[in-house]
Amino acid sequence: MAPEYEILNPETVPAYIARTDGLKDVVDTSTLEVSEVGDGNLNLVFVCKDGNGNGICLKQSLPYVRLVGEDWPLTPERVVAEARGLKAAVDHVPDLVPAYYGLDKENYVLAMENLMGWDMWRIQLNLGKMHPGVGAKLGRYVAALAFYTSFFSIDQGEIKERLAEAINPELCKITEDLVFTEPYIDVENNSYVDELIPEIEGMRADARLRAEVGMLKYKFMTAGEALIHGDLHTGSVMVRNGDNGGECKVIDPEFCYYGPVGFDLGALFGNYMAARARAAVLNRPEEYQQWLADIGPETWDSFESEMRRLWPERLDKTWTESFLDAWLAQVAKDTIGYGGCKANRRIIGLAKVTDIQELPHEEHVKAATMVLRTASTWIRERDELATVAKANDVFNEVRAEVLG
Amino acid sequence: MAPEYEILNPETVPAYIARTDGLKDVVDTSTLEVSEVGDGNLNLVFVCKDGNGNGICLKQSLPYVRLVGEDWPLTPERVVAEARGLKAAVDHVPDLVPAYYGLDKENYVLAMENLMGWDMWRIQLNLGKMHPGVGAKLGRYVAALAFYTSFFSIDQGEIKERLAEAINPELCKITEDLVFTEPYIDVENNSYVDELIPEIEGMRADARLRAEVGMLKYKFMTAGEALIHGDLHTGSVMVRNGDNGGECKVIDPEFCYYGPVGFDLGALFGNYMAARARAAVLNRPEEYQQWLADIGPETWDSFESEMRRLWPERLDKTWTESFLDAWLAQVAKDTIGYGGCKANRRIIGLAKVTDIQELPHEEHVKAATMVLRTASTWIRERDELATVAKANDVFNEVRAEVLG
Repeated sequence: MAPEYEILNPETVPAYIARTDGLKDVVDTSTLEVSEVGDGNLNLVFVCKDGNGNGICLKQSLPYVRLVGEDWPLTPERVVAEARGLKAAVDHVPDLVPAYYGLDKENYVLAMENLMGWDMWRIQLNLGKMHPGVGAKLGRYVAALAFYTSFFSIDQGEIKERLAEAINPELCKITEDLVFTEPYIDVENNSYVDELIPEIEGMRADARLRAEVGMLKYKFMTAGEALIHGDLHTGSVMVRNGDNGGECKVIDPEFCYYGPVGFDLGALFGNYMAARARAAVLNRPEEYQQWLADIGPETWDSFESEMRRLWPERLDKTWTESFLDAWLAQVAKDTIGYGGCKANRRIIGLAKVTDIQELPHEEHVKAATMVLRTASTWIRERDELATVAKANDVFNEVRAEVLG
Repeated sequence: MAPEYEILNPETVPAYIARTDGLKDVVDTSTLEVSEVGDGNLNLVFVCKDGNGNGICLKQSLPYVRLVGEDWPLTPERVVAEARGLKAAVDHVPDLVPAYYGLDKENYVLAMENLMGWDMWRIQLNLGKMHPGVGAKLGRYVAALAFYTSFFSIDQGEIKERLAEAINPELCKITEDLVFTEPYIDVENNSYVDELIPEIEGMRADARLRAEVGMLKYKFMTAGEALIHGDLHTGSVMVRNGDNGGECKVIDPEFCYYGPVGFDLGALFGNYMAARARAAVLNRPEEYQQWLADIGPETWDSFESEMRRLWPERLDKTWTESFLDAWLAQVAKDTIGYGGCKANRRIIGLAKVTDIQELPHEEHVKAATMVLRTASTWIRERDELATVAKANDVFNEVRAEVLG
């Protein structure tokens, strides 16, 4: 499984940039400083900065999962998927993603804007720092992908071709396994503290919950609605200028494929839930907790109003306003359900989140319990809840129950 | 738009068969009688019979819609789609489809069993002839496609490839337009008698109905659940031996693609509804009407029990029994909704059905009204109806209302 292409390292990156059209003019390679910062699980990431303060970021995929090694082979084509996801957003919400500089399909290298001075949103949330307006921007990001990559704005025949071209089965399988399957069965990838066992065993024995998780997984596997990011958690969002109208940029769309629009929103909502649980057990200031509580509705309202703003531009005007209402109602239910799935997996499954994981033991148990209970109710009752406001209420009730 | 391949005619067919591997041994071409019987709208169909009583059927697609001519170009690749749909069924329910003899991709010719002595089911229904057991067989046909062409029995990665390969946008667009769009707007393709205008205008002004038709269309365009037939009306079913445990064979799967399983069942249910309306206004014998009334539930029960029978063979055992229950409940709702869409279009849109169209005027109006009212209720209230038994009740109520 050794790669059959050139694997970059900090020493070879300047020469690589210098010989690559589209990249060599972005930075001065004679004064380039390169560091490999791939803290993620999958790829090499080279952050490059030249003497003039210009930067570039190269992301190279390996033919295996970096975290695990050659024992877990994974298609390097994922960087092609990432380029596809990035370009789709660059075309319509350029302010919300890094600039795109090029894709080298032979060596699986994606070149993009270096986000110097930006911070990962999850870490900022963990620190209790507010970035007002980021939720609304993410709602706009999801709406732009939903509208501009679907048959709402592209010819039906071309959409089918794009869907076929964008299948991403290996990456989708990771989501299918880690998000929808493993948390609900006893497998080695799972881990959790003993105090959570009764809650988790209760979930596994709950036939209704298992059925609903299955239905959400089935939709993830079969619904080709729009090109979605596929992994839109708060660690895939970079932020800055929190004190001054927060800015954000969405990164890492390598899981992108044609899937259900509510999955991206659900990923955000599941991670908002984790952030809220952390803030609750750490007893963060009321202002901060309220800001966090409002992010879900803010994201949704922005998504909805952006969809309604774009709707008059739809390619085929025979789609009615009443259809848009029904569609939005369905996406809201999907969002709540996927939010629950994304939250549960972060407590039980292989890929944890620092929001909850790095809390002191007692707080960890409380926050995790809060997430599991809220998430399971979201999954089971998403049709009855129907709105993100009511889903938020569930969290409030569970929080009161857990904190006593 | 003249074809760039050899278009067959009854004179050239024997030589074509004689020089084609896989076909030349099926019939004796020196004694072959060939007639072109393509009564459909799209293709050439050659029925061939030799002096020994052996037969073969060749179907050749033209690069346009036969009914309209070169002004309506349509991909001849549709015969490749048909071969795909046929082969998928041949592998698992060979008794329910014609034998497959081969596909000539260069000349767009599909060779299959000649169904001499079989009759089109719609014509038999129009004549008031019973073929007991056909409904159950069709339920088994849909279940076999649903199970064996989906990730229920095929590796997830391979399914994505198959879905990509099986996209059929030109044929899907015909369905999208004729089934879901045109009946609800004022376009030239539509036609209906004046007495139906108030009913149809009421439907077009009904925002809820339009929204629900939109949601069903959206699912048709985005849900890649399994390889479906795509045009499973009673004219796509050949029958024989009605007096002796009816046999059937499903033909014409050229609209096949990865779509929602409930669409095929809905196509059957919409056409059963037309047959029931005809029988009601013609005051057919009670025994016949009761047999017709039971076909929907018979089809569904067979579909469901076949899915439950196959379920233990599913590839991934982490899909629970409770998921199957939830999935079947969703397919039932889809079936009712698609049944309504398929019924409405046959009254309003371009492609009518003889069941209703060839009735005397007064009966035609009554039967058409019955169908429109039942169909619209099915579409609007499919979630509340939830079962095919309740959907059947709606027809009974509407029939009583219309017949007074």
